[in-house]
Amino acid sequence: MPLSTDPGPGSVRPLTLLTDYGVGGEHVGALHLRLAADWSRSARIDIAHDIPPGDVRWGALTLARHAPSLSGAVHLAVVDPGVGGARRAIALELADGSHALGPDNGLLSLLGARIGVRAVADLGDGPADAPATFHGRDLFAPIAGQLAYGASLAEVGDIVAPATITQLEIPTPSVAEGNLQAEIAGRDRFGNVSLLAGRADFRTAFPSAGDVSLDCGHGPQQATVGRSFGDVPSGELLVYVDSNEAVSIAQTGGNAWRRLGCSVGDAVSIANA
Amino acid sequence: MPLSTDPGPGSVRPLTLLTDYGVGGEHVGALHLRLAADWSRSARIDIAHDIPPGDVRWGALTLARHAPSLSGAVHLAVVDPGVGGARRAIALELADGSHALGPDNGLLSLLGARIGVRAVADLGDGPADAPATFHGRDLFAPIAGQLAYGASLAEVGDIVAPATITQLEIPTPSVAEGNLQAEIAGRDRFGNVSLLAGRADFRTAFPSAGDVSLDCGHGPQQATVGRSFGDVPSGELLVYVDSNEAVSIAQTGGNAWRRLGCSVGDAVSIANA
Amino acid sequence: MPLSTDPGPGSVRPLTLLTDYGVGGEHVGALHLRLAADWSRSARIDIAHDIPPGDVRWGALTLARHAPSLSGAVHLAVVDPGVGGARRAIALELADGSHALGPDNGLLSLLGARIGVRAVADLGDGPADAPATFHGRDLFAPIAGQLAYGASLAEVGDIVAPATITQLEIPTPSVAEGNLQAEIAGRDRFGNVSLLAGRADFRTAFPSAGDVSLDCGHGPQQATVGRSFGDVPSGELLVYVDSNEAVSIAQTGGNAWRRLGCSVGDAVSIANA
Repeated sequence: MPLSTDPGPGSVRPLTLLTDYGVGGEHVGALHLRLAADWSRSARIDIAHDIPPGDVRWGALTLARHAPSLSGAVHLAVVDPGVGGARRAIALELADGSHALGPDNGLLSLLGARIGVRAVADLGDGPADAPATFHGRDLFAPIAGQLAYGASLAEVGDIVAPATITQLEIPTPSVAEGNLQAEIAGRDRFGNVSLLAGRADFRTAFPSAGDVSLDCGHGPQQATVGRSFGDVPSGELLVYVDSNEAVSIAQTGGNAWRRLGCSVGDAVSIANA
Repeated sequence: MPLSTDPGPGSVRPLTLLTDYGVGGEHVGALHLRLAADWSRSARIDIAHDIPPGDVRWGALTLARHAPSLSGAVHLAVVDPGVGGARRAIALELADGSHALGPDNGLLSLLGARIGVRAVADLGDGPADAPATFHGRDLFAPIAGQLAYGASLAEVGDIVAPATITQLEIPTPSVAEGNLQAEIAGRDRFGNVSLLAGRADFRTAFPSAGDVSLDCGHGPQQATVGRSFGDVPSGELLVYVDSNEAVSIAQTGGNAWRRLGCSVGDAVSIANA
Repeated sequence: MPLSTDPGPGSVRPLTLLTDYGVGGEHVGALHLRLAADWSRSARIDIAHDIPPGDVRWGALTLARHAPSLSGAVHLAVVDPGVGGARRAIALELADGSHALGPDNGLLSLLGARIGVRAVADLGDGPADAPATFHGRDLFAPIAGQLAYGASLAEVGDIVAPATITQLEIPTPSVAEGNLQAEIAGRDRFGNVSLLAGRADFRTAFPSAGDVSLDCGHGPQQATVGRSFGDVPSGELLVYVDSNEAVSIAQTGGNAWRRLGCSVGDAVSIANA
């Protein structure tokens, strides 16, 4: 549920940051320094900086899940393995009054689809004398600051058609009563494994709690469909809907990611036992 | 020494955050976004997010050591392996004018014992339609924001008796002149190993600097009792009182945790050589 | 290019933080808490906390590269393997109106050389009753706060001669057309390997793009001189000038640090193929 923080006319707006730079390092620090130097009146909120390096899809999912909770903000997102190459740099104006900017490699596309895109600007290549490898600091941060201080899309780039945005292909799960197959999207610090399937898929496949068998390619494992970690004994696997509304696999008191030994992109099959 | 930052009536108060979510990830980001959305006037200060997953005791020790330096704040703490289960969610009003809230699994108990508990509220189970696995964002953050903006305990929950708070059992060290035995509580990034013993224990056991022998179960190792890392040559072990007033073991220019090869919960014996 | 954020007389100034404490841990949290308690009107910006433990040179390089982008700030830097020993604690007043403070082990010297040092103060040993191992919190943070709130160097320490500052020795690269030899200084999260050589060295050695051979002691590897990651196919090595103006080695779509298997301090030889 998006919360309204529309700053009103003339006000500065908060900035959010999402990158694969790794938290605590100089790259994240350099973004904050650049924004603090010239746009210090805008609050800066870190969404995540531990996106796996170059994992555009996980970055796009994380952005689409969390950015909507701060409507009216300017969302600066950089997972950009093609920095310095041919991909465009873009900024979006979204239907909740927020802006999002980053590389046009699909990173912004899920957020755009979720909230709705009003307009798009091509931001060009950045200053010609800047290094080619740190567009986060040298191209995106200054424009994010300008947007937060009230600039319009047309003032920071060339307006282009929304249909030109690069879209991510998200594979749809295969769902039937008692059966769900989906791809692994990512995992969190606790080793909870997030799938490309949502609450509606979960309800269709498993309308009630019970035992299931799951397999991501290394043989079947017993698991339980439930609501939270306490629903299974310590050490056992749980299939549930996580706080991002995604079907996930956890090991109570343990680490499902290590237990399963599978990778992002692997297919997982879950079926009634 | 607690520093007074009492905001006075009508003012907003700062929020501190301590979790085992892992810094740089979307879970910490989601807490900040939720608080920034509706309670943006409260400053947010991260105490620690690298508590080992589910290590309630280390979280409780870290909270009790650091939260008192910002009296008048609202301390949001979540190390919550039982989230979604039967454990209560509670908020404490403390004797220094601060509040602390989190799961009632012992996490808040050492801070409460250190500062003194005036009143306790049971916060219930959170919104029925929220996910069961992210009470930090869905239950605790909004209440932390309300407390920071001036709500009373009775406005955010049901007042219960302070005696109902779950207490942690902290094993006491065994201390005699020339001899100290204590359990390993945790470690920091430098590999300094922190024991469940304090400055008074240290003074009793080792009233003056000198050589000792220490053993955590893999055979005795030579070490030196001292005040700081420069008191022993590079590569050697130091027994000292750390900046949290806990007896600790360091390796100058190295990593005592890896050198000793022991685990949290192991007993360490230190005796005059 | 330093950006002007001079706060003007009577104003508070922003604080930046750079340490090897490890982000997300209680040590960084304790710095923020101490500063938030008594100097909450100063903004706090984290430059980096993931400096490898005790790597004073990498800390000094990182500080000198990033601190100048926020002129007028107070830069608190702690990479301090000799804490509690004989090294001095110092504060510098710099030519851009900023201050820097930290241990006198060379950590501040590259920043001082880059911006220019106006004056230096010896900060003494800190409060006698404080722990000997956490000068970041107990000695430097309070003085950083005082400087940010307008104190002069003479108010926080004893003025000493700038010539007494401990300087780091940075080995100069060996450069000729078609040939460059330099030491490895560090690396980032992506495994990009940064050398102790700059853009001018790069231009002299490799005035145009082309194939080179590089060797850090484990045998020659093929690489390409270019401007950004897109200039070589995925999986191949790129030699380029990074966003800090340092000659660096990257593997497009991979991790050059792991590919090369070398260490900080190793010499790298790069020559036309």
